[in-house]
Amino acid sequence: MMCFSNTYSQSDDSIIQKIYREQLTKSPVYENLRFLSKEIGNRVNGSHQLETAIEYTRQLMIKYQFDTVYLQPIKIPNWIREPNETVRVINSPSVKRDLNCIALGNSIGTGEEGLIGEVIEINGLDDLTKTDKDLITGKIVFLNQHFEKGNINILESYAKVLWQRANGASQASAKGAIAVIIRSLTPVNNNSPVTGGINYQEGIKKIPAVAISTNDADLLSAQIKQTPETKIYIEIHCKTLKDVTSYNVIGEIKGSQFPDEIILTGGHIDTWDIGEGAHDDGAGCLQAIEVLRLFRALNIEPKHTLRAVMWVNEENGVSGGAAYAEESILKNTKHIAAIESDLGGFLPLGFYYDTNNEAAINRLMSWKKLFEPYQLLQFDKGLPVFDILPLKNEKNLLLGLMTNMQKYSGLYHSENDVFETVDKRELELGAAAMASIVFLIDKYGIE
Amino acid sequence: MMCFSNTYSQSDDSIIQKIYREQLTKSPVYENLRFLSKEIGNRVNGSHQLETAIEYTRQLMIKYQFDTVYLQPIKIPNWIREPNETVRVINSPSVKRDLNCIALGNSIGTGEEGLIGEVIEINGLDDLTKTDKDLITGKIVFLNQHFEKGNINILESYAKVLWQRANGASQASAKGAIAVIIRSLTPVNNNSPVTGGINYQEGIKKIPAVAISTNDADLLSAQIKQTPETKIYIEIHCKTLKDVTSYNVIGEIKGSQFPDEIILTGGHIDTWDIGEGAHDDGAGCLQAIEVLRLFRALNIEPKHTLRAVMWVNEENGVSGGAAYAEESILKNTKHIAAIESDLGGFLPLGFYYDTNNEAAINRLMSWKKLFEPYQLLQFDKGLPVFDILPLKNEKNLLLGLMTNMQKYSGLYHSENDVFETVDKRELELGAAAMASIVFLIDKYGIE
Repeated sequence: MMCFSNTYSQSDDSIIQKIYREQLTKSPVYENLRFLSKEIGNRVNGSHQLETAIEYTRQLMIKYQFDTVYLQPIKIPNWIREPNETVRVINSPSVKRDLNCIALGNSIGTGEEGLIGEVIEINGLDDLTKTDKDLITGKIVFLNQHFEKGNINILESYAKVLWQRANGASQASAKGAIAVIIRSLTPVNNNSPVTGGINYQEGIKKIPAVAISTNDADLLSAQIKQTPETKIYIEIHCKTLKDVTSYNVIGEIKGSQFPDEIILTGGHIDTWDIGEGAHDDGAGCLQAIEVLRLFRALNIEPKHTLRAVMWVNEENGVSGGAAYAEESILKNTKHIAAIESDLGGFLPLGFYYDTNNEAAINRLMSWKKLFEPYQLLQFDKGLPVFDILPLKNEKNLLLGLMTNMQKYSGLYHSENDVFETVDKRELELGAAAMASIVFLIDKYGIE
Repeated sequence: MMCFSNTYSQSDDSIIQKIYREQLTKSPVYENLRFLSKEIGNRVNGSHQLETAIEYTRQLMIKYQFDTVYLQPIKIPNWIREPNETVRVINSPSVKRDLNCIALGNSIGTGEEGLIGEVIEINGLDDLTKTDKDLITGKIVFLNQHFEKGNINILESYAKVLWQRANGASQASAKGAIAVIIRSLTPVNNNSPVTGGINYQEGIKKIPAVAISTNDADLLSAQIKQTPETKIYIEIHCKTLKDVTSYNVIGEIKGSQFPDEIILTGGHIDTWDIGEGAHDDGAGCLQAIEVLRLFRALNIEPKHTLRAVMWVNEENGVSGGAAYAEESILKNTKHIAAIESDLGGFLPLGFYYDTNNEAAINRLMSWKKLFEPYQLLQFDKGLPVFDILPLKNEKNLLLGLMTNMQKYSGLYHSENDVFETVDKRELELGAAAMASIVFLIDKYGIE
């Protein structure tokens, strides 16, 4: 059993209590998220709403009297979807309605006339690899690997099926497929198709890719069992326009002792073009701003500079995070730590970390005790955190807020990610957790 | 730092994994709760629905092939509410509508003509104690102590305001009040009044007691500040009819080695007469049954007898639990452990325990490691667990399933406690947690 010496004092306890009290009694974070979700809505690249959301968060930072608020311009891809997406089983006696579908982000369209093809069901990457090219060429590939329901670890299960959405189109195309239909990446049985980005592989012909709801994936699978030569009609109208200029929104409170050393909090401001992006990642953005507002409200003067960043274009290539890191490297900006909230505004359970610095891990573990009364018990090495990952160096500490993800996978990238599914106290507890760890990092450093 | 030797083997790990897998992929618990909540509904003492729910859970246990299923008859109080409950501010220029109200469980009625009185606001028990009898006599007392929002520990905050609902009427009556209005016991600002039981103190005149929503408590408080001599009209029509016979529902799987030693799982089948009792405590009942179904489904033969109990009348006096314990003592039935789920069907976070047996605590702690992958990290000494508390003796282990209670206090005993607020996976995880700990207790005992 490892033991860590404790790096904290009694007074830290009382500051953290104040942070929680302020957050649970006076926080504007829930109302801010309501505004972002209900008054602005989803915020896909190129949309008016994205620009409105950028301006809204910029204004919030000004209102909360951050020392500096500015925008970092960046070119982002401009993929758009047009209405009338259709996935239809042709001539089926049992499937009489169109399937609930949504084109995957970045997909090419089918053209106005749509496309028709025989469908072949593929269950898993092995199955795709083993299936003869002859059997796939000219067909629509239906990638029906299920999200593993039986595993409590949502991220683990997600990682297993992610290839279908991210790489399924190129992998099927390499074997001659004319389009792919994927089972929505969620363990929940429902009628809501889930979108998300495709990475088309260079040198492989792009083919249209569309997700259908889990219930309809079951329906289609049953149809294929009954009639192996089932034909499908697909019509999606998406296209990629010219890149547009958008912005990362950045606000900071200057550090009193180490103004050139940054502790960053962040979330991504963009979403797909469905739902309201309340959990993904409206919650994270407003929690990140809230951390700095808490320092102001409680008159805690940070020693390091605290910086809140709303990254643009996480969903379609994580280029906001990349551009931010690139500029940081160019300007030689030192980030001692960065914490991201991108797992939804659910009950926070702890933090996951990614660092090469053993001392930082020990320091983090030494604070665990302080978080016990706040039910933050998970301190685990975690997955890379996308927007902040490019900031990683030999010394700094990358953190993510770990949340109760059981519901997340039934909401994200779908019509279900709306404000009504956010609980006020849970959202506030997330912001309080982030502010508390930032407070400790600022006070004690990470080594 | 305490250390515990680990009492488990590798194979336990794999059984627990099977329990979770079965639960997350094939469990009927969510559909069962849908039926109980939507097809039957709330289940107040004396109602047809309560009897239907008792029969429904009895039939479930038979369907799942428990070895024995039976009913324990018990007389329960029969308090009923009739429509047209009113709390009205008289002649107020600012409060033009009636307040959202609900009579507290067990309250006497006001009579057909209602009652009118000047209102006095009291903020906390100290305030009530200090206020002169003269100032209270003949008045309606408005108990407006707030549920402490700033504390993450919901049960702690609940314990601080509970007196208003449970004892406020008698305490105010002792000082000559003619009725009490209480601020609903929830930290959430909303329009849903929250009911719950009164304990009228013997020898003190019973007076009517009604809860108003938190938003309306704020409204009323502002009105009183503006017009200290504010008058209120109250009309509630409740009465207590003759006791009726109802039943605890009991089902068991016989133990192969210690058939006379019981490991109990339970929840209470009754509710108040509002909402659907989905979280309180439909979830707990169906999870308790689910534990035994899991043993059957996975062909795990328990050494001790597993018994699922649906207690009746928890809400209005906990007499179902008391009668069950009484009969157990009479028959000298040995309960080595009992686990109750009555904190809602939310994400389970761990277990709280109550025992005089140090060895049992050590044993419990030695299993913590097994539960880490399932995010059950809270193993704390906890509050008495009402229905099983009378079973406590020098040796046995009483447990409760600890859940994420952040939302619970905005739902329970109100119109908001409906099936739609239950998450399928979270409900299932609760049942899996209970089944896993029961499996370990059965296999290793508690000392």
